[in-house]
Amino acid sequence: MEVKNFAIAIHGGAGTVSKSSMSKWKERAYKEVLRRAVTVGSIILQKGGRALDAVMEAVMIMEDSSLFNAGRGSVFTADGKHEMDAAIMNGRNLKAGSVAGVTDVKNPILLARMVMKKSKHVLLTGEGALNFAKEQDLELKPKEYFFDQSRYNQWLRAKEKNKVALDHDEASNNKFGTVGAVALDKKGNLAAATSTGGMVNKKYGRVGDSPIIGAGTYANNATCAVSCTGHGEYFLRYCVAHEVSSLIKYANKTLEDASELIINGVLKSAGGRGGLIAIDTLGNVAMPFNTSGMYRAYKISLEKEFISIY
Amino acid sequence: MEVKNFAIAIHGGAGTVSKSSMSKWKERAYKEVLRRAVTVGSIILQKGGRALDAVMEAVMIMEDSSLFNAGRGSVFTADGKHEMDAAIMNGRNLKAGSVAGVTDVKNPILLARMVMKKSKHVLLTGEGALNFAKEQDLELKPKEYFFDQSRYNQWLRAKEKNKVALDHDEASNNKFGTVGAVALDKKGNLAAATSTGGMVNKKYGRVGDSPIIGAGTYANNATCAVSCTGHGEYFLRYCVAHEVSSLIKYANKTLEDASELIINGVLKSAGGRGGLIAIDTLGNVAMPFNTSGMYRAYKISLEKEFISIY
Repeated sequence: MEVKNFAIAIHGGAGTVSKSSMSKWKERAYKEVLRRAVTVGSIILQKGGRALDAVMEAVMIMEDSSLFNAGRGSVFTADGKHEMDAAIMNGRNLKAGSVAGVTDVKNPILLARMVMKKSKHVLLTGEGALNFAKEQDLELKPKEYFFDQSRYNQWLRAKEKNKVALDHDEASNNKFGTVGAVALDKKGNLAAATSTGGMVNKKYGRVGDSPIIGAGTYANNATCAVSCTGHGEYFLRYCVAHEVSSLIKYANKTLEDASELIINGVLKSAGGRGGLIAIDTLGNVAMPFNTSGMYRAYKISLEKEFISIY
Repeated sequence: MEVKNFAIAIHGGAGTVSKSSMSKWKERAYKEVLRRAVTVGSIILQKGGRALDAVMEAVMIMEDSSLFNAGRGSVFTADGKHEMDAAIMNGRNLKAGSVAGVTDVKNPILLARMVMKKSKHVLLTGEGALNFAKEQDLELKPKEYFFDQSRYNQWLRAKEKNKVALDHDEASNNKFGTVGAVALDKKGNLAAATSTGGMVNKKYGRVGDSPIIGAGTYANNATCAVSCTGHGEYFLRYCVAHEVSSLIKYANKTLEDASELIINGVLKSAGGRGGLIAIDTLGNVAMPFNTSGMYRAYKISLEKEFISIY
């Protein structure tokens, strides 16, 4: 049975984004990448492709842009490196793959997909994950590929203040943390994908919620697909993505209500800043955030398109 | 308000343990450590101590024993190293700390506790986690401390077959994977802790469910505290610990029913082998497993004690 609707939603991070701090050309540049990502995903779905492929391709486009804190645009760690995290999950069979603290890999989301497909594992980390990427012949990039002057300056400022910062905590706000996508395909299957460069100036091999199944990423055909962005530690402790699914499955909440409840209820009360995108098998889309902005877009079938920042 | 009951439950891993393959003295040795761990935890609780301290001390006793695959008794990775994972969670405030792929640290659970207490993060990994341990002056041990001839032989056999193995998949069954504890203190607070040496001959920086909040470890005063053991990939995909909590919170299941449903229902159907220990604020304890054995024990108040393997 084919469903009528197919849909995809994406995000490029949530945080403090004020309209006043954003020049017109910059806003246009961000929206352009969001539009391209959501369109490419949408075309895959329209042709009968898999939700899994749609979310992966959409995330790869954002990873390849230096505008977002993922892949190419990843922020600097305290050691001046780029340690990236990513996860992908298939709602049809609950298969999942993820990587944490991986360097050099051009598209961490592709690596997560390979972990799901070619390894017996779910989560690979650090050098081991890089070795797996090499065995799978994934494209690696030299340090210069990930270098960006504004990110570098951002890192220098963070080092000066000796603080670990969410990408979006920067007043200058050149770049922004985490990208993600969720999709429903014509066969009624859901998928979710998330990718990030983590926190600016991060130390100690810190890992946030993005690569953690049930925290930053989750997909289950019985309920919904979710990708989160924000202050990772809160999303980890509150198992946010899985909590949205549980609220739908066991508390009879709608996608909208479940997503709102956790982001603007539970998390907001606890001081956890961020947002999420979610989709269900009816093609409903929810995109709540408790920050001043979240780069986001969705496309339902090929008609209804929405792109926004604030 | 003080509750009447205080209780602690612990596990030392689940898997294929047949009575025939277990000599009498070996069984006695395992039970002896389980008894010591559950007793020490219980005395802390009896004196009005915190659930958090009880689970940590109980796990440390098992980490310090070479019988269990955690801390001192950790299995060998493909590189001949010992990479350990641990997590701890406080049900009172949902604070959590965890580490993955950490070497040299005598007690990974203590490191997880320090991550919760002294860092702004939840999850630290690899070399970064070790650096944090050093800054916190945690006790490190040389390679020899973790060396054990039977574990070494087990690794050689796994290498020969070029396979990644759950500790308990070995017919010889000298050692056994993962340890954990859950507790309820007199103030009605819950806590959970889990520690493991992971899979024998593991590669690629693989991380299982143990250090993942919501997968192998979870505690929430509103529902229950849970520590899991088994084939980590399944526990990750099914967000097992958080699922037990959700079933109680939103589907009105009892602790017993929720735990059984996931271990002997959902996971068993999916082919996910393992078990879990769980406790609620009434002092109910559940310890389901879908394998032939699980090293386990509990103590309710100072009277009711239970220690078993099969």
